[in-house]
Amino acid sequence: MGLEQVSGAKAFGGIQGVYRHASRETGTDMTFSVYVPPHEDGARLPVVWYLSGLTCTHANVTEKGEFRAACAQLGLIFVAPDTSPRGEGVADDPDGAWDFGLGAGFYVDAAQAPYAAHYRMWSYVTEELPTLIGAHFPADMDRQSIMGHSMGGHGALTIGLNHPDRYRAVSAFAPIVAPSQVPWGQKALSGYLGDDHAAWRRHDAVALIEDGARVPALLVDQGEADGFLERELRPDLLRAACAAAGIPLELRLQPGYDHSYYFISTFMADHLRWHADRLR
Amino acid sequence: MGLEQVSGAKAFGGIQGVYRHASRETGTDMTFSVYVPPHEDGARLPVVWYLSGLTCTHANVTEKGEFRAACAQLGLIFVAPDTSPRGEGVADDPDGAWDFGLGAGFYVDAAQAPYAAHYRMWSYVTEELPTLIGAHFPADMDRQSIMGHSMGGHGALTIGLNHPDRYRAVSAFAPIVAPSQVPWGQKALSGYLGDDHAAWRRHDAVALIEDGARVPALLVDQGEADGFLERELRPDLLRAACAAAGIPLELRLQPGYDHSYYFISTFMADHLRWHADRLR
Repeated sequence: MGLEQVSGAKAFGGIQGVYRHASRETGTDMTFSVYVPPHEDGARLPVVWYLSGLTCTHANVTEKGEFRAACAQLGLIFVAPDTSPRGEGVADDPDGAWDFGLGAGFYVDAAQAPYAAHYRMWSYVTEELPTLIGAHFPADMDRQSIMGHSMGGHGALTIGLNHPDRYRAVSAFAPIVAPSQVPWGQKALSGYLGDDHAAWRRHDAVALIEDGARVPALLVDQGEADGFLERELRPDLLRAACAAAGIPLELRLQPGYDHSYYFISTFMADHLRWHADRLR
Repeated sequence: MGLEQVSGAKAFGGIQGVYRHASRETGTDMTFSVYVPPHEDGARLPVVWYLSGLTCTHANVTEKGEFRAACAQLGLIFVAPDTSPRGEGVADDPDGAWDFGLGAGFYVDAAQAPYAAHYRMWSYVTEELPTLIGAHFPADMDRQSIMGHSMGGHGALTIGLNHPDRYRAVSAFAPIVAPSQVPWGQKALSGYLGDDHAAWRRHDAVALIEDGARVPALLVDQGEADGFLERELRPDLLRAACAAAGIPLELRLQPGYDHSYYFISTFMADHLRWHADRLR
């Protein structure tokens, strides 16, 4: 498995790198970023996964996420994958919309043509990329956690709920919590998975919880001035599902905050400290 | 003086805004960003100016500078102007190079045609924009300081040295310290100022110090892996000038750091604390 370093820069005593590789799962080149904090030779460090939202690549959080100071202090590796396959031959939204196709892989393995050929972000993020990270970085793969934003919050929640023994902490910024019940999610799940509603439920955090999936604890920050709050995000549905299931959910509604990286960066260090407490 | 808010977002309890106005000095619309930290009604807060480097707009530091957490904690307003006039009728480098013209105003008032018509960044940053900031934001204009990166470090040093009573602290990341002696600076000063070498000296930090200008203290961080270090930046010249003049210079050579915002963001909070100590 070859790994090409696209760029690398010292930051907060560690190295912020960007890497590219030929992905087996997506059949395309995939790019991702990894921050490795300062550490002693031979140390193996816990890994925090960050899944990005619609339209993003690895670059948005890498440039605007303000995670490096906290990762350096807490000794966390921070991995940011892309949000979809890209490149020649990768099908996009038929109308070029930004909420499906390129930049909008929704962290599923597509079953529908023409997307099934390359849109395998579930297997990419949960299987192929972890193997690569474990092989090429000073990562302790027995200590992983996951977070994400919006569509990536959906990814973090569904991946965490499907792998309760792998990710010790799950958190999200303004996540899509019930894609089966909101327009972004309905478009994505029908486009990628067709009408297999059992498959939809495995990719819907609220449905997963209703169906018995559990995580030890959840932290969610949601801006109250987020324009997508009521139509697409619906934290009320996550709150109800967690209450019914007995999952301790810390849902913090943040007055005045929107959906942007200004919101995410404000609470990033909080989330990383919460993750670090659970990764010790 | 009208001021249009282009965008605004809550961040670290304050507001990160972007604003546009019709500039008297440049004869163009100018865009800048201001972060106002959380504060009590009626409070007037000290102002830190940040001048950006070649090719940048206000957006680079606004997105990548990681200054808001520290500004919120320390109670500092952070102002980031653009680096040149822009728009129809604004002359650019004749060859379209990135080190002159658009994005490369070098913080001077141009005397040479065709640049003299719009390139008035010195008066814009030292006169017009401070008046606007004082009128529209909760700013205490008796407590100002200035910092910058690369070309903007040159701007911060020369503006600070020319206004020792106005800016209580001056710092820089990887500044151009002696533009008269390096290729970027020689191209810019000859292009904007012609062969008036007395004018060059007023826009050259090392020459200003040699000619008697003083500031109470200087803080400079310089990455040792910065590809521009030996050809364009030459911190050794600043060190020698400050030593001869008795100016206390804290020049920190940072092993492994390059010229990017990964470097700047690493040391941004340090600089802001140093400024805040001098703005109390």
